[in-house]
Amino acid sequence: MRLLFLGTSAAVPTPERGLACTCVERSGEILMFDAGEGAQVAFARAGLGWNRPMRVFVTHMHGDHCVGVLGLIQTMSLHHRAEALEVYGPEGIIEFVTASLRSLDVIPPFPLALTAVSPGTVVAARGYDVLACAALHRVEAYSYLLAEHERPGRLDTAGVEALGVPRGPLWGRLQSGEDVKVGGRTVRARDVTGPPRRGLRVGVSGDTRPTPGLEEFFAGCDWLVFESTFSHELRQKALDTMHTTAREAGELAARAGAKNLVLTHFSARHGDAAGLLAEAREAHASVTAAHDGLEIEA
Amino acid sequence: MRLLFLGTSAAVPTPERGLACTCVERSGEILMFDAGEGAQVAFARAGLGWNRPMRVFVTHMHGDHCVGVLGLIQTMSLHHRAEALEVYGPEGIIEFVTASLRSLDVIPPFPLALTAVSPGTVVAARGYDVLACAALHRVEAYSYLLAEHERPGRLDTAGVEALGVPRGPLWGRLQSGEDVKVGGRTVRARDVTGPPRRGLRVGVSGDTRPTPGLEEFFAGCDWLVFESTFSHELRQKALDTMHTTAREAGELAARAGAKNLVLTHFSARHGDAAGLLAEAREAHASVTAAHDGLEIEA
Repeated sequence: MRLLFLGTSAAVPTPERGLACTCVERSGEILMFDAGEGAQVAFARAGLGWNRPMRVFVTHMHGDHCVGVLGLIQTMSLHHRAEALEVYGPEGIIEFVTASLRSLDVIPPFPLALTAVSPGTVVAARGYDVLACAALHRVEAYSYLLAEHERPGRLDTAGVEALGVPRGPLWGRLQSGEDVKVGGRTVRARDVTGPPRRGLRVGVSGDTRPTPGLEEFFAGCDWLVFESTFSHELRQKALDTMHTTAREAGELAARAGAKNLVLTHFSARHGDAAGLLAEAREAHASVTAAHDGLEIEA
Repeated sequence: MRLLFLGTSAAVPTPERGLACTCVERSGEILMFDAGEGAQVAFARAGLGWNRPMRVFVTHMHGDHCVGVLGLIQTMSLHHRAEALEVYGPEGIIEFVTASLRSLDVIPPFPLALTAVSPGTVVAARGYDVLACAALHRVEAYSYLLAEHERPGRLDTAGVEALGVPRGPLWGRLQSGEDVKVGGRTVRARDVTGPPRRGLRVGVSGDTRPTPGLEEFFAGCDWLVFESTFSHELRQKALDTMHTTAREAGELAARAGAKNLVLTHFSARHGDAAGLLAEAREAHASVTAAHDGLEIEA
């Protein structure tokens, strides 16, 4: 699994940072969280293909988080995308995208599904779920959690060879937990595979104040991508605009037991985010400040 | 007057070229022709201020020409713009902007006027008019012409000094064509000013096939910014998608008697546009191929 940070600025783009857009690439699929204006440019720059299986999750209906959906759909249309595209978000996403595509005379040549989310399971896919939790912002807003399913343990390849199981489909069946017969003898999957491997959990906050609900929602996640629009010195501004300070993000991640915290969504006034990083590190041991183009192997 | 090319790509942005956006800066005001996705980034990079008198003219309602209006309005709002913003375009611009701002929870703190254009005079401002002409594209589309008013001739400053007119307000009155009295004697403006200076005319095609109507509309203009999406080798593609080839742009500019032609709106397949430039130069003596960031003193 790979995390890609395509846009890391809050509210307005800067020469160094584009508007909100974070992607997770896993098993050939792209899960995009937010798509601010310019997302298609960053998406193209990252070399992600226009016809990949893809789901977009919009956290809330502010322009710097969702206007880029229009350009993505238009450019995918021009590139003759055939794969379905699923877009999830607050109820307003349906009217915004539908009305805009009508105004802009765009008729996607691929199936486009727009879905209003509510707290709970948003997507139950092969290998993972995506869940939503109410966030606390100036408009209806959601945080998302990508929760991979538990995966079967690794196959003991030396062991199965020793047991005379020929390399090929039988190995795949054993790996997926199925017992197989070889020369009249049963080889049990549980004897030749390691313990089940837990799936990774990746949380994405969107814009929000920190809340106990989010702390619970993100409990124990492996990677937590949390907004930290302001330094703690500007906490009043964070309260007024319903954002989170870097220190608050660090504290929430620590209380939630998140293994790794990635800060993003920086106010333009904070330049290189070094101060925000230092602040969050006072509360949490593993913190990264995202920048446009950052990729993390998770 | 200054022409600024903020986005010069057709349909999809490339690493080098943003989506359609051309500005004219004159007497402190910005006239923007089209605003594709990312226009606000290029606008900020060009160092144009968020609170300048400004009018936006959208040629047609394709996303790569108008989606950027949303981000411009949002960012101007965040920067507490107070000046009115006027946006002109096909009728659809009104519904697109109004519905989108509602979806995105943006309430501009400045007066925002959205106006549907029809062929003829769109704006009659102090010092210039902007006119629209029907273009020929896949949807309702307009070309625009900025026509400066005739300006009074230059004041013969040595002459007025010799006639004993003191430097100050009287000079300004003479310059603007008014006769003045000095020591009981009348100094006539026409005796101390040169011939009236014609205003500049700048045409912007938007997306279109070349037409006789546009040739007439752009007759004798000083600067003609014309789309040349394709090379002439791809003329069939230009016909199918209702665009203009570089050679056709050169020929139209020559027939219209345009003094200078600037090509823009290049298909991503044409790379550095050198071939398109050469093609247009076969038909017209003064051709420039625009690139993002190009500025021309007109």
